Amino acid sequence: MGLVVQKFGGTSVGDAERIRAVADHVARTRRGGDQVVVVVSAMGKSTDDLLRLADDVSPVRPPRELDMLLTAGERISMALVCMALAGRGVEAASFTGSQAGIITDADHTRAKILEMRPTRIQEALDAGLTPVVAGFQGVSTTRDITTLGRGGSDVTAVALAAALGADVCEIYTDVTGVFSADPRVVARAKRLNKVSFDEMMEMAATGGRVLMLRSVEFARRHGVPLHVRSSFTWEPGTWIVEEEPTMEDAVVSAVTDDTSEAKITVGGVPDHPGVAARLFRELAERGINLDMIVQNTSENGLTDISFTVATTDVDDARTACEAVREELGAAKVTADTGIGRVSIVGAGMKSNPGVTALMFETLSNKGINIEMISTSSIRISCVVRADRVEDAVIALHTAFGLDAVAS
Amino acid sequence: MGLVVQKFGGTSVGDAERIRAVADHVARTRRGGDQVVVVVSAMGKSTDDLLRLADDVSPVRPPRELDMLLTAGERISMALVCMALAGRGVEAASFTGSQAGIITDADHTRAKILEMRPTRIQEALDAGLTPVVAGFQGVSTTRDITTLGRGGSDVTAVALAAALGADVCEIYTDVTGVFSADPRVVARAKRLNKVSFDEMMEMAATGGRVLMLRSVEFARRHGVPLHVRSSFTWEPGTWIVEEEPTMEDAVVSAVTDDTSEAKITVGGVPDHPGVAARLFRELAERGINLDMIVQNTSENGLTDISFTVATTDVDDARTACEAVREELGAAKVTADTGIGRVSIVGAGMKSNPGVTALMFETLSNKGINIEMISTSSIRISCVVRADRVEDAVIALHTAFGLDAVAS
Repeated sequence: MGLVVQKFGGTSVGDAERIRAVADHVARTRRGGDQVVVVVSAMGKSTDDLLRLADDVSPVRPPRELDMLLTAGERISMALVCMALAGRGVEAASFTGSQAGIITDADHTRAKILEMRPTRIQEALDAGLTPVVAGFQGVSTTRDITTLGRGGSDVTAVALAAALGADVCEIYTDVTGVFSADPRVVARAKRLNKVSFDEMMEMAATGGRVLMLRSVEFARRHGVPLHVRSSFTWEPGTWIVEEEPTMEDAVVSAVTDDTSEAKITVGGVPDHPGVAARLFRELAERGINLDMIVQNTSENGLTDISFTVATTDVDDARTACEAVREELGAAKVTADTGIGRVSIVGAGMKSNPGVTALMFETLSNKGINIEMISTSSIRISCVVRADRVEDAVIALHTAFGLDAVAS
Repeated sequence: MGLVVQKFGGTSVGDAERIRAVADHVARTRRGGDQVVVVVSAMGKSTDDLLRLADDVSPVRPPRELDMLLTAGERISMALVCMALAGRGVEAASFTGSQAGIITDADHTRAKILEMRPTRIQEALDAGLTPVVAGFQGVSTTRDITTLGRGGSDVTAVALAAALGADVCEIYTDVTGVFSADPRVVARAKRLNKVSFDEMMEMAATGGRVLMLRSVEFARRHGVPLHVRSSFTWEPGTWIVEEEPTMEDAVVSAVTDDTSEAKITVGGVPDHPGVAARLFRELAERGINLDMIVQNTSENGLTDISFTVATTDVDDARTACEAVREELGAAKVTADTGIGRVSIVGAGMKSNPGVTALMFETLSNKGINIEMISTSSIRISCVVRADRVEDAVIALHTAFGLDAVAS
C-alpha cells in the first residue's frame, strides 16, 4: 500500500460533472489499495468571479482581505469533492490550509510556507479517511489566512507529499503531460515520459507552462517524485524525478519559449568599476527581478548594459534606470517590448559541446537574429524578435531531432 | 464612546452596491464616535447557489462538508465589506467564526454555541480596528467548522454583543422593524417602537418572521438590548428591551399568524392514566417537536388527543401515532394540514381579564370557528381554518385598537 497525493487544478474541478469524474478517479485509486490525499484548487473561473466582485465593491483591496476572499474558492470545491466521494462510499473529510497545518509567513497574496504540521491529515489517514485539502492557502504565524500566490496549489500538494512521505505527488491538469515544445506552436511536439528535476526547473524558468518553478524546486529539494497527467484522459503522463546515473540523456529534451519579457538597455555607460553594481542595487531595492543580463564589450571607455524584466515591470525598471542615469553618467535608457526568448533544455547538453553551434546555425539559417544569449550547464537561451519566436521554436525542435514520428 | 454590534443580513449585503451602502453606514457610525463590531451573513442568494451546486454534485451530503461549503458564503461577504471599509478610510479586519472564538458543539448544520472566546475581536477593537465577523459559523470542540442553523447570524451577533459587553446589538434587515401584524396581511399594521423580550419571544414563537426565537432568548438571557432596523432606510426601528416597571403596557402589542403547522388527532383513546404519556414519549423519541396540545373532555370513557406539529413533520408524526395506536387502544389517527394559528401578544394582557373574551367575540362575529386554544400569561393563540387566518388577523388588529391612524 502506497500513499499518493493527487492534486486537481481549476479546470479539473470546473463543474459538477468534472468533480464527479475526480471523485470516480480517487475512488478507483483507493480501491487499488493506495491511500490518497487530495488537494484541490478553486473551481474553474471562480477566482476571477470573486476578483470581479471585489472590483465592483472597492478600488482598495487590502491583501489580508483579498486572501480571505479568495480562499472561499477552495472551500467550495473541496466540500463538493468530499460530498461526491461520500456518494461513492469513500469516507472523506475536507481540511482548510489552516486545518492542514500549512504555516506560512504573513506576506499576504504570496506567502511562503515556513512549516508543515499536517497532524490532522495524518490522523485522518490513520483513521482510514481520505483527506481533501484546500490548495493555495495557509495560515500565518499571526493566525491570519494567507494565500501562496501563483501556482500555490501545486506547492500545497508538493509540501504535503514531502511532509507525509508520499510515494508520488500527482499533478492532474488539462494537458496530458510535459511536452518537448508548446504543442500550440509545434504540431509535432511529443509528450516526454520522464524529465529530470534539473531539466524541469530550466523549462519552468524559460516559459514551460505546465509547472511553476517554485513547486519543482520544492519537489526536488524534498525528493518528491512528480507525475504530471491529465484529469480528462486519466492516462499516464510525465514523471519528473531525480536524474539517475543510468538515465539515457537526450541531448536536448525540450524547446521552450517566452514572450512575457522586455529588454531594457542603459546606453553609453562609462566602463569603470561599481557602475553595474550601482544600477542593479537600485533595481533590487525597488523589488524588480531581472532575468538575463548582458554587458557589451567596451568601446572608447563606454559600454551598454542590457537586461530583461517581466513586461509588467518595464515601467518601474525604466524609472529606476532613469533615477540613476545621471549619477552613472549614462547617455540614455531604452526599453524594447518586442522581444522573445527561445531556449533549449537537456541534461545531455553538458557532455555535448556541439549543441551551442547547432542552435546558432539553426537560427541563422532561418534568418533569425540573436540579440542576447545566456546559458546554464543544461540550457541555452537566445533573445530574438518576438515575431520570430515561433519560427525559432519549430526550427530548433526539428534540428534537435524532437519531432514526433507522424502516426 | 459606546460599543455597537451591527449585524447585516443577506439582502443587506446582496450585491456590490448594498455592500458599499453598508460600509457607508458603518463608517458613519465610527465617525459618530462609537466602536463597531460588524457581523455579516452570506450575500443574498449565494447560499441557495451553493446548495444547488451540491445537489448537482452528489445526492449524499455529509453535514460536516455541508458546513464547510456554506461557510464560504460569509467569507466572501465579510472580505468584501472590509475592502469597502478600507476604501472609506476605516481600517477593518475580517474574522471567521473560528477566529472570532465562537466555540460550538459538533452538531453540524445546527450547532449550538458552547463558549465565546472573542480574544482576537477584543484585540482588534483595542487596536482601533473595526472587526467584521462571519455570522452563522463557528468551530467545534473537535476543531471542525460548524454552522448555527436558521437565524444563526443573529445568534452570532447577539452572542458577540453579550461577550463583548456591547451597548446594543443592531439587527439590520429588509424591513424597518417589528410590526403590530404582518404588513402584507394588515395594510394598517404599525411599526412598534419598543417591545419587551417576553413579547418578542411570544411573537417569534407564533409566526413573527423578523427575529428567530433563539436569538431573542439569547439576548434576553444576557441582557443585550436589540434594535431591529432597516439597512435600506437606515431610520430607527424597533427596540427590544427588558420590560421596565414604568413601561406603559399596551394591552395587546401585536397579532401574529402562522400557517406552517398541521394538526394531528388521535381519536377514540381510552381515557385512563399513562395513555398521553405513552403517546408523547413515542413522538419525543422520534425527535418530533409538538406545539399546541389539546385533550377533549372524556365521553363514555373515550377521548380525543390533538396536537400541532410543523407541516414538515406531519408524516413522521402520523407514523409515530400509528405505531402506538393499537397499544393505546385508540380508534384512529387523522392529520389536518388545512389549519392556521392566529395569536395576540401583549405584556398588558396579564392585568386585563377581558382580553380573551374580546378575542373570541371578534372571531365569532366574523364567523370564524376556533378549533384549538392555548394561552400564556401574555399570549392567546387560536387554531382556525388556514383560509380564515388573514380575516382573523385583520379583525383582531382592529378590535384591539392597533390600526395605524391613516396619514
